[in-house]
Amino acid sequence: MSLAAQVLETHPTAQGGPNRDALAKCVEECFTCAQVCTSCADACLSEPNIAEMTKCVRSALDCADICDTTGRVLSRQTSTDTNVVRSVLEACAAACKACGDECERHATMHEHCRICAEACRRCEQACRDLLASLA
Amino acid sequence: MSLAAQVLETHPTAQGGPNRDALAKCVEECFTCAQVCTSCADACLSEPNIAEMTKCVRSALDCADICDTTGRVLSRQTSTDTNVVRSVLEACAAACKACGDECERHATMHEHCRICAEACRRCEQACRDLLASLA
Amino acid sequence: MSLAAQVLETHPTAQGGPNRDALAKCVEECFTCAQVCTSCADACLSEPNIAEMTKCVRSALDCADICDTTGRVLSRQTSTDTNVVRSVLEACAAACKACGDECERHATMHEHCRICAEACRRCEQACRDLLASLA
Amino acid sequence: MSLAAQVLETHPTAQGGPNRDALAKCVEECFTCAQVCTSCADACLSEPNIAEMTKCVRSALDCADICDTTGRVLSRQTSTDTNVVRSVLEACAAACKACGDECERHATMHEHCRICAEACRRCEQACRDLLASLA
Repeated sequence: MSLAAQVLETHPTAQGGPNRDALAKCVEECFTCAQVCTSCADACLSEPNIAEMTKCVRSALDCADICDTTGRVLSRQTSTDTNVVRSVLEACAAACKACGDECERHATMHEHCRICAEACRRCEQACRDLLASLA
Repeated sequence: MSLAAQVLETHPTAQGGPNRDALAKCVEECFTCAQVCTSCADACLSEPNIAEMTKCVRSALDCADICDTTGRVLSRQTSTDTNVVRSVLEACAAACKACGDECERHATMHEHCRICAEACRRCEQACRDLLASLA
Repeated sequence: MSLAAQVLETHPTAQGGPNRDALAKCVEECFTCAQVCTSCADACLSEPNIAEMTKCVRSALDCADICDTTGRVLSRQTSTDTNVVRSVLEACAAACKACGDECERHATMHEHCRICAEACRRCEQACRDLLASLA
Repeated sequence: MSLAAQVLETHPTAQGGPNRDALAKCVEECFTCAQVCTSCADACLSEPNIAEMTKCVRSALDCADICDTTGRVLSRQTSTDTNVVRSVLEACAAACKACGDECERHATMHEHCRICAEACRRCEQACRDLLASLA
């Protein structure tokens, strides 16, 4: 079990059930996606065809920031405001969709874009699964 | 004019019109609110009645992170994805509403909560104004 | 007085003296520099000569992240660890120096780089002043 | 291999050698530690003895922010400024040391503090190993 899953499980208010697994999964995907998007944005900067990659850099920077914040909000379980959690998850799914679509266009040319698209798809799905489990 | 407004104005894709002012205003309120919420969460930690302030700390930490990310996304103007911008603004307005409501409950007891509620109200309004101007 | 200065002043542990002013000044410069660097990195992305601006983008993204974190650490006053504060201020001064130097090279060509260099110089100075007042 | 290690390896400027492994390791520990510290700070907030945990919350919030920024700076490899990298790694090691020491004091009482201390020790070590490999 990852340290993220372990620490979430030891929270004084932690509960069992399907939500717990969806939460731990989503937290992990958010932090992974934040790292991968930061790395991919920078890798694009070093590509010879940077002039064609500027939209990709921008969507990856947005996605990194939004995933980072979403992972932080989800890591907190004290007096959770479901309305805030829901709207953050919607924003994260939207950012992952946008970045995943853009990176996919460059996936055959740049391996970092292929990996980034994969991280975005996984994170988007984890956000949608968690949203569904909150319904 | 603030440095934030100046730098936004010198972006190669910057345009005039009402959106520009709503954008600069919202960026400034997001960064101010991120700072004030970070400070208020920590001030609450040092209060003798911290046991009654834990919900306030949590909502301020969420609000700080979301305002920070929203201010960053709005500061970018290259190949903007309106769908992402919109969902981030919705999340920011929700977080500012939640933190503003909670801080207001402690405003007569803690001056930092009164100031934080003010920053949250301003930022929420700036997000809603920008959302309206994007419609 | 800015909201940042006000909220810092209402912290339960706030003290008077020269440190207080140096602290409030540094917090404000860190958040301003984080915004301006985020904006400048993105403005560079939209420039026709982006291929020559990649080092500038990278130094601005680093500087934005480090200023952001430094502004957050300084906004907290509960049980401060001077060793941590000092090392963060050193990192922030180094990042502002690096980004200020790089932006200055493009200041006559790109107005956003001129503004960003100014924000970096101010923030670097505020970090060094605060470091001196902690000595 | 983690997605973080994969994406770092596909950077156009990526090189082999011992630095590459120390870099990937440090990036992973920084993002893990940022998540665990965020979670531990919030878990402390929900503990009945929160009044005795305020220093722990503060050191964990600082450590989360600094690890997050360090993980981002290290994820970038375009035109790296070794001086900036070095000073950020020093700040990260200092924050991990401070938070690890504080969490260790509560490790027998709070399992989340035990896990957080472990994440901080690992991250501090990874920063020091990377600093040594840069020498």
